[in-house]
Order: sequence, then C-alpha cells, then structure tokens
Amino acid sequence: MEGVDHLAHERNKAQFDVAVMKAVWAGSRDAYELFHRFSRLVANDPEMFIPAIKAQATEEQQKQWLPLANKMKIIGSYTQTELGHGSNVRGLETTATFDPKTDEFVLNSPTLTATKWWPGGLGKIATHALAHARLIIDDKDYGVHGFLVQLRSLDDHLTLPGITIGDIGMKYGSGAYNTMDNGSLIFDHVRIPRNQMLMRLSQVTREGKYVPSNVPRQLSYGTMVYVRQKIVFDASIALSRAVCISTRYSAVRRQFGSHNGSPETQVIDYKTQQARLFPLLASAYAIRFVSEWLNSFYKDLLQRLEAKDFSTLPEAHACTAGLKSITTSVAADGIEECRKLCGGHGYLTSSGLPELSAVYIPACTYEGDNVVMLLQVARYLMKTISQLKSGNKPVGTTAYLGRAEQLMQYHSDVLRAEDWLKPNVVVEAFEARAARMSMACAQNLSKFNNPEDGFQELSADLVEAATAHCQLIIVSKFIEKLQQDIPGKGVKEQLGVLRSIYALFLLHKHIGDFLSTDCITPKQGYLANEQLRSLYSQVRPNAIALVDAFNYTDHFLSSVLGRYDGNVYPKLYEEAWKDPLNDTSIPDGFHEYVQPMLKQPLHHGRL
Amino acid sequence: MEGVDHLAHERNKAQFDVAVMKAVWAGSRDAYELFHRFSRLVANDPEMFIPAIKAQATEEQQKQWLPLANKMKIIGSYTQTELGHGSNVRGLETTATFDPKTDEFVLNSPTLTATKWWPGGLGKIATHALAHARLIIDDKDYGVHGFLVQLRSLDDHLTLPGITIGDIGMKYGSGAYNTMDNGSLIFDHVRIPRNQMLMRLSQVTREGKYVPSNVPRQLSYGTMVYVRQKIVFDASIALSRAVCISTRYSAVRRQFGSHNGSPETQVIDYKTQQARLFPLLASAYAIRFVSEWLNSFYKDLLQRLEAKDFSTLPEAHACTAGLKSITTSVAADGIEECRKLCGGHGYLTSSGLPELSAVYIPACTYEGDNVVMLLQVARYLMKTISQLKSGNKPVGTTAYLGRAEQLMQYHSDVLRAEDWLKPNVVVEAFEARAARMSMACAQNLSKFNNPEDGFQELSADLVEAATAHCQLIIVSKFIEKLQQDIPGKGVKEQLGVLRSIYALFLLHKHIGDFLSTDCITPKQGYLANEQLRSLYSQVRPNAIALVDAFNYTDHFLSSVLGRYDGNVYPKLYEEAWKDPLNDTSIPDGFHEYVQPMLKQPLHHGRL
Repeated sequence: MEGVDHLAHERNKAQFDVAVMKAVWAGSRDAYELFHRFSRLVANDPEMFIPAIKAQATEEQQKQWLPLANKMKIIGSYTQTELGHGSNVRGLETTATFDPKTDEFVLNSPTLTATKWWPGGLGKIATHALAHARLIIDDKDYGVHGFLVQLRSLDDHLTLPGITIGDIGMKYGSGAYNTMDNGSLIFDHVRIPRNQMLMRLSQVTREGKYVPSNVPRQLSYGTMVYVRQKIVFDASIALSRAVCISTRYSAVRRQFGSHNGSPETQVIDYKTQQARLFPLLASAYAIRFVSEWLNSFYKDLLQRLEAKDFSTLPEAHACTAGLKSITTSVAADGIEECRKLCGGHGYLTSSGLPELSAVYIPACTYEGDNVVMLLQVARYLMKTISQLKSGNKPVGTTAYLGRAEQLMQYHSDVLRAEDWLKPNVVVEAFEARAARMSMACAQNLSKFNNPEDGFQELSADLVEAATAHCQLIIVSKFIEKLQQDIPGKGVKEQLGVLRSIYALFLLHKHIGDFLSTDCITPKQGYLANEQLRSLYSQVRPNAIALVDAFNYTDHFLSSVLGRYDGNVYPKLYEEAWKDPLNDTSIPDGFHEYVQPMLKQPLHHGRL
Repeated sequence: MEGVDHLAHERNKAQFDVAVMKAVWAGSRDAYELFHRFSRLVANDPEMFIPAIKAQATEEQQKQWLPLANKMKIIGSYTQTELGHGSNVRGLETTATFDPKTDEFVLNSPTLTATKWWPGGLGKIATHALAHARLIIDDKDYGVHGFLVQLRSLDDHLTLPGITIGDIGMKYGSGAYNTMDNGSLIFDHVRIPRNQMLMRLSQVTREGKYVPSNVPRQLSYGTMVYVRQKIVFDASIALSRAVCISTRYSAVRRQFGSHNGSPETQVIDYKTQQARLFPLLASAYAIRFVSEWLNSFYKDLLQRLEAKDFSTLPEAHACTAGLKSITTSVAADGIEECRKLCGGHGYLTSSGLPELSAVYIPACTYEGDNVVMLLQVARYLMKTISQLKSGNKPVGTTAYLGRAEQLMQYHSDVLRAEDWLKPNVVVEAFEARAARMSMACAQNLSKFNNPEDGFQELSADLVEAATAHCQLIIVSKFIEKLQQDIPGKGVKEQLGVLRSIYALFLLHKHIGDFLSTDCITPKQGYLANEQLRSLYSQVRPNAIALVDAFNYTDHFLSSVLGRYDGNVYPKLYEEAWKDPLNDTSIPDGFHEYVQPMLKQPLHHGRL
C-alpha cells in the first residue's frame, strides 16, 4: 500500500490553486519558502528570561549578563509565579530586603505560598533565576521588582546555600509538559549584590534611596504585547494542526449509509460532521489572518515606542489581551472537538490529538488567564465609551464605538439568505451587536454608586461584551485580508467561503446576542443558518486541499489519522505493534496473578 | 497544620442540613449508608461479556458457560468494534461461515479493517472472545451474530492457531485508560463447533438451516438500556467529583482584590467564577436526579419486558440514548471546565483533574457516539409528530407534544425576574421551545421528496431539537424530584435554588433558541439573567456544604486541590517532592549534556 495516495480523489476535487493558498497561509511567498525548508515547528513555551533582561536591565547590566546567557554559560529561568499567586503579580510574597550594611539584597520566601512554582527550567536545569520579589527598603514596600539570583554552582551544579529547588511533579498528558522542567524554589535569606537588581526602570542607590528611572514604564509593556501576539500566532498553528488531522481522517473514515453492498459513507459527508468541522477549519484561517494583522500592529507599536509615542499602547494592550483569550480558547476547545470528531481512534496516542491537546490547553491560563484578559478588554471598552461624551473619537479597533448612536438605530436589512454573503452586511451586524452589548453594560454600570462593585457584579456580562468585541475584530480582519490582491485560481473564492462560514457560524452560535440586542430578526437568523448549510456544501470538495495548504509534513503532524496519503488503517495497526506490551504474548504478571485463578479443576486446552 | 479545617468558616455558612442532603444525593438513607460504608467507587468501564451471554445465549449455553465465566475459569472479552467500524454494527466485516462438512463455523477477518479493535481485556488477558461476525451460510449473509471463540490455551495462555492478538497502544492521559487492556484481534480461518454460536435469538441447524427464534428481538434491547442508564448515573459521579474539587479549591484560592494589606479575595467570590462553577454544581444535581428517574424507568421496563409488554421500549430507547448523550457531554466538558477553574494548578496531576478528564472523555464515544444518539432521539421525535395527525396521543416524556398546537400559541407571561422562579413558568418555556424546534424540523423535512435526504440535510437542526427535548426532560425531572416530600432544614430550599440555576443557566446559554422560536422576549431573557445572578449569590454561602453532600472521601477524590480540610498548599508541595525527579539534586544527563555547555572559560562558583 506504500506510495498510494488514498486521498487523491479528494485532492482532485479542489477548485482552487493549492500552491497559492500555501503562500497565503504562510503569510507570503518568502515565508512559505522559509517554512517549507525548516518545516519543523514546535509549539514553543514562551521564552522570557532573555527578553525580560533586555526590557528590565540597564545597558551596563545587559552587557554583563546577555553574553553569558546567549552563549549558555548561564541558564536562566524567568521566575515570577508563586504557589499562592498567579495572575496577580502585585500579590507576590517573596521579599528582597536591602541591607545597607553589606550593600546586598536579602531574598526570602516568608511563607509556603511564597514558594516560586511553575517557572520553566527552574527545577533541575537553571543556574540562575530572574526572580520577582517585593523590594523592601527600611521596612517600606516598593512593590515587585526583578532580581538576578544564582541558584546553583557553575562548578558542580549543586544548589547554593539557602536555596531549595525541586520539580513540581507530574502534569496533564502522557508526554506533553511532563518533559518540561517546571520547578519550585524557596529562598531562605539568600544574599545577592545590590547590582543584581534589574535597574532599568528604577534603581536603589548605595545609600538605600529608591530612584524611579526616567525610562517610561510603558516600554516594559512591549514585551507583554510581543509575547501575546506570538501566542495568537501559535493558536493558529495548534488549531490548524488538529483540523488537518481531523479533516483528513473524516475523509478516510466511513460509517453507515451502505446500500446494497456499496461502500459506507465518508464521515466528512455527514452534515453533523461538517457543522462541527468546517467552522473549525474556517477558524484556523481566521486566527491565522488576525495574527498576521496583530504582528504588523506590534511592529508599528515598537517603532512608536522607540519614538516615545505611547498613543497606541492601550489599544495594543486591549487587542492582544482579548485576542490571546479568544484565540487560545477557540484553539483549545477546537483541538478537543477535532479529537472527538475522530471517534474512538482519536483517543489513541497515535492519533496525535491527545498530546496536542495536553500540550496546548495551558495556553488558556499562562500569560494571563483568559477570563481576566477579557475583563481587561471590557475595562478598555467601558473607558472608551465613558470618554465618548467628552468628544474623544475612538480609533483603530474601537472606531465603531464612535458611531454608537447610529449603531443603536441599526436593523439588519437582510431579506434573502445570500444577503449574508455581503461583507458589509456581516460587519454591520457584528458592530451593532458589540456596540449594544457594551453600551448596555455601560448603562448598567452607571446604576452603581461604586463603579468597582458594579464591575464585579456585572463581570459575566462584561466578559460577553468583550467577547463580542474581539469576534468583531477577527471577522473584520478576515474581511480586510480579502480586500487585498490575492492571485491564484479560486483562492480568493475559497477564502470568501471560509470567511462567510466563520462569520455565520459565530452568528449562529451567538444568535441569542444578536436577537436579544434586536440587531436581527429570528427570520434573518434562520436565513443565516440556511446560508451556512449551503456554504458547508461548497467547502466540502475543497476541504482536503484547504488543509493541505497548511503545508504540514507527516512528521510535524505526528498523527497516524492525519497522514497525507490517508493510509490510516495499516499504519494504525503497525503503530500498535510498536507498543512494548506486544513484545511478548504473555503479559508480565500473568503467571503470578491470572493463571492461579484460571488453574482450577478444569484443565483441558479447549472448551 | 494537620487536623485544621481550613474550610470550617465556609461550612458554618451553610443554610441547610447537610446530613439530609447527603441522603438526598445518595438517593435514600439506605443508599447513603451503603455508599458511606463502601465509599470507594471507581468509574467503571461497562462490563458486557457476561450480560451479553445472558441476553443472547440459549439457556443450555448459559448453563455451560456462565459458571465458567463467573468463577473466572475463563476470561471473556466482548469483541464487537473493528478497526474500520465503530457505531455501525451492521457494517462489521468479520465473517463466520458455516461448514456443513465438519459442523463448524469458520471465523475469519477478510480485510485489515475487519481487525477487532478496542475490546476491553482482549489484548493480553482474555482467554475467550464473544466475537461479533457476519453469519454466512451457503454464500448467503444473515447479518451480525455472536460467537464464543477461544483465543488462548487454558494451559499456557499462548494464543491458539489462526489467532493474532495484541494491545492497541497508548491512549489519552498518563494513567487513565492506559492501564486498560484494549486489544486487537485477527482471525485466520479459526474453526469453532456450531454450538458456540449464541443461539437464543436465532439458530443454525446441523443441516445449515437458519431459524429465527420466537424469542422477541426486543428483549436484547434491555441490555443496551441498562448500560446506558448506568452511564447517566456515572456521569453524575464524574461531574460531581470534578465540581467538588473545583468548588473547594475556589474557596481556598485567593487572587487580587487586596486592599491595604487585607487578604486577597477568595476566587469563589468572583462573579465570573460563580457563573461558570455554580451551573456545573447545579448540573451535577440535575444529572443525579434524572439518573435516579431513569433507573426506575428501567426497572419498570424490565418488568414489562418479562410480561412481553414492549410498549415503553421505544421511549426507553430514546430517553436513554438522549440522556446518555447530553449527560456525558455535559460531564466531559464540565470536568475540563472545572480544571480550568483551578487555574494553573488544575494542570498538575496531583489536582486529580487531568486523569479524571482523560478517563471520562471516552464516555462521549463509547456505547453510542453522542451525535448519533441525538439523531436517534430526533427520529423518535419526528415519528411521534408524524403520528399526531392520526390521533396517536404521545405519552411519557413526549406527552407535551400532544399539546403541540397549544404550545405553538404560547408566549411567556414573565413580567418580573422572580417570575422565573416558578417551576411551571420554566417548564412551559422549555416545552414550547422544544416543541417548536421539533415542529419546525418536521415542517422542513416535509419539503423533501426523499425523507432520508431531508434527515441528512437537516441533521444539525435535528440535533439541536433533540438537545432541547432532552434538556426539557432533565429540567422536568428536577422539578418532579422537588415535588416529593424532602425533610431537613433548608434542604428543599437549596435544591430549589439549584433547580432554578440549572434551568435559567440553560435558558441563558440557549437564549437564541428561546428568542428565535419567539417563546420569550429579549426583555424576559434579560430578567432571567438578572434572576440567575441573584441565585448565584444565594448559593454562594452553601457551596462548600453542597459539595460536602456528595460525601466523597479524600481517597476517592484523589485531589490535593479538593481536600476536605482545604489544606491545599502544604500538600501540593509535599506531593511535588514525591516526584522521582526530586530524588537527586542533579538531574540524569546533566553531566553528559548540560555541563559541557556551561563549562567554558568562565569557571568561578559565583557570578
């Protein structure tokens, strides 16, 4: 069976130029060539040690430490999270107390919950930590700062006095993050020289005077924006990988529907399978394009920051927080859905999906819990709305709120199912929904005497409003992408179908929002659903080619079910026989435990 | 810290009699006592070998085989699923061909996809298989029947000639189903005596004549109904276990919200946490009560079947299929949500949640894929509706469809948020929604010339209609439960709060259904949401006691985060130190791989 392409009939159905789509997916022809050459991508855990030193250390400190770190003469771990404190950095308990007598800081973990917990590489490998601790001078607490602390001897790697380090134990999945060294760390009055505090943003003098630097604090946000936009990109990789596996296997797998000895129906031909799978295929493309936009937004931000222009920083912060939250949630849930769409075999490790899921799901929690992120977006939206009265014209992704009055009057004018294919019809409905949900929150908030009480009480509604806003961004960026010049036979048409699937699937999923804000009528919602069904039929013949366009090698996919050639069953069988359990016919422990039970009076070889 | 109850302040807040609630949860005082004594329950994989022999073997065959199986002189595996064939039993490829010359059946796997795949215990342990294969006599295919086939010698456990058995390889999770022996099996013309076909439902004579028995085929459905109602019960166990862990940890964990040195806010006090956690708490109770009802329905069915009364069988089949689907999906998603609600620490194996999730998720696939199950419910609903015209009055869980005309006129009369607390107000809204969704499907189906084409084209809508029907059942049974006499201070009140949370959460989640079918107005939806928020505040002080009522031991929960005494952090730290990685300070491989990299010119012990 080797060498046969079992999905050739599927590939022949494609109505577009796959080579061009590969370049579109990769972002550009150059990016495609690059990816094609180095086609081994792994879902990276965000590295932070070195970027953090760049952001927080003085130039002098950077000169001293970066060469050591870059040449791996020291191995650093970014050490922030504590056993009792995650998202809330201000709640950290570890202290760094200045001792003017010796010109040192004394690092200490005053409680068990102050134990550093989770940092990558910390438990067994790191020689140094960039430890975050509360700076204490003369009993005064100056808040959390960064300190470079040596943990282990560079001679024999043994831990230094006052340092207790260990691994935090087993995690989700059979491989996954278990190969990652997540560590714990307790300081018992560990002394470091004063110059090992990262002093770019504020300094402590020899006399113990705290001097905030004149470097704008905003600069440090650049790192966070960078990391989060990278996470959005990674979400498109992770989700598309699962979608590729699930789509190919859905074309291979047959179940039910045989008439008079004909083959059973391909699972991908079932409408229920399509209604779950194709929105995820469209979502993979949607996330890809919004991450492309976010990356260019980030590059623009960097240039502005260097020129001391902080005007786009709040929006960058809100966008990356919101898109980080939405895209990682969609990817995590989507991977699991793809696993389910593979039926029982999706549960096998050789399907690649259990590990993909186990490795991916922490993305919903790290670098900002997804709910906390959406609440930050909501704060930004509420602030934007409160400033409308004073004539502040919102720009960028919140520009539509400047048309809030007009959007409050909006009623969709959709009359026929096809009307839902018009990008402006879709965008207006999404804008009106997002604006009305935010405006309703703002109005309800105004009823509270204490705005913080209101924000807390209404937080579930605020999360929904923020979600609507972020979905609008993704829909809009998909539409903008298609306003670019995209060559290649059928490529733009296929992307248009995916764009509509993405938007109308969201509309169907959140139909309650659209109806309860009175943006559309039940009839219009019904027409959207009708259009969606027809779009599924349109995408069906192109499905395999659309996942081929991701250009993932079998090696990268690591999935028997997602094989390019669709030769699933023989390989599944082959994989099973690699299991060490199959090295012997009689399992370990059989003679000790099972045989005595069987060996009773009855002794013949056959029944 | 040992012996201190860190959640005592939470338990003191409870406004109801926990001891009585424990009995309510357990089903009765007796059941509670029993559970309390044997409080070690494990999530069982459904056993089927023996029940299947009981259902399908003749009395004579049962006399011969059951004693052997019961005394474990033989170990059987129920062997149905094939590599290429899961839910569709009729698609199985394995053949059993009658050879009149020797009076034997010849079992054979004609293709690789005919390989038996997944059966529990098959790979390494089983001595016999109850193999499902197509019965072939004189080249005529009589469909799938059961055959008892010996696989291994009872002397040395070696596989017999013509049999190839193995394990199917690694599965999801680090432990989970990996300790389960899921096997594969290929037959190469294996001969068994004719009397090893299970002949209760049909027989093959010495001459090769096929004789269907006069035992009603319906009897065999009893097993399926039994297994599925057991799965619904298990869903309540699995979900409540995760909810218990997550609720307790949410009361222990503190994050943000500190003012002037006060402790941070308990995570359980955040409305966003409540809006995700409390509906799951309510769902656990809801699933528990519907499983209680389903069990009594099953017992009634058994009595009827024995009396040859098959009248309730179709409804039993639809109910168990639908409730199996809904409850396992809610439980699987709910466990994962509980894991997320525990933040980063939920990702640690010691939280108990990764394994609980990995062990549980196959329930969405085995014993009937959840989407296929809902389509079966939809078929039953469409059939019920089509029979309305001929005056057939639907009974039981579909009785409301008999009032379809009236329900099509329904408009909710809710005026104030509190109106949503009235059970009849809720039930009517759920009935109207379910009836209208089913009626709309029936109407759309009637537009197709070929009903099967219509069923396939509209299957996504049909799944949604079936979901609405099943949710109505669960809501109704929760309400009926509370119409019983339930003593104990505050117990009924708390259950009433949970009932309303369950119903109004569903209403909020599926608000699109209610609005687009015009059952309620946006304003009424808004009032429901307002009421829901107030219910969350009511359940908050009782949350810990409500999970205490599950009466799970720490041993059963196997979760550091879900400890009864809330003493989470010291135990989390302790658990981590049990990791073998922490046996040595310097990790394996350090000297070989890491040190050479570090050992470059720079050689001093400190920076």
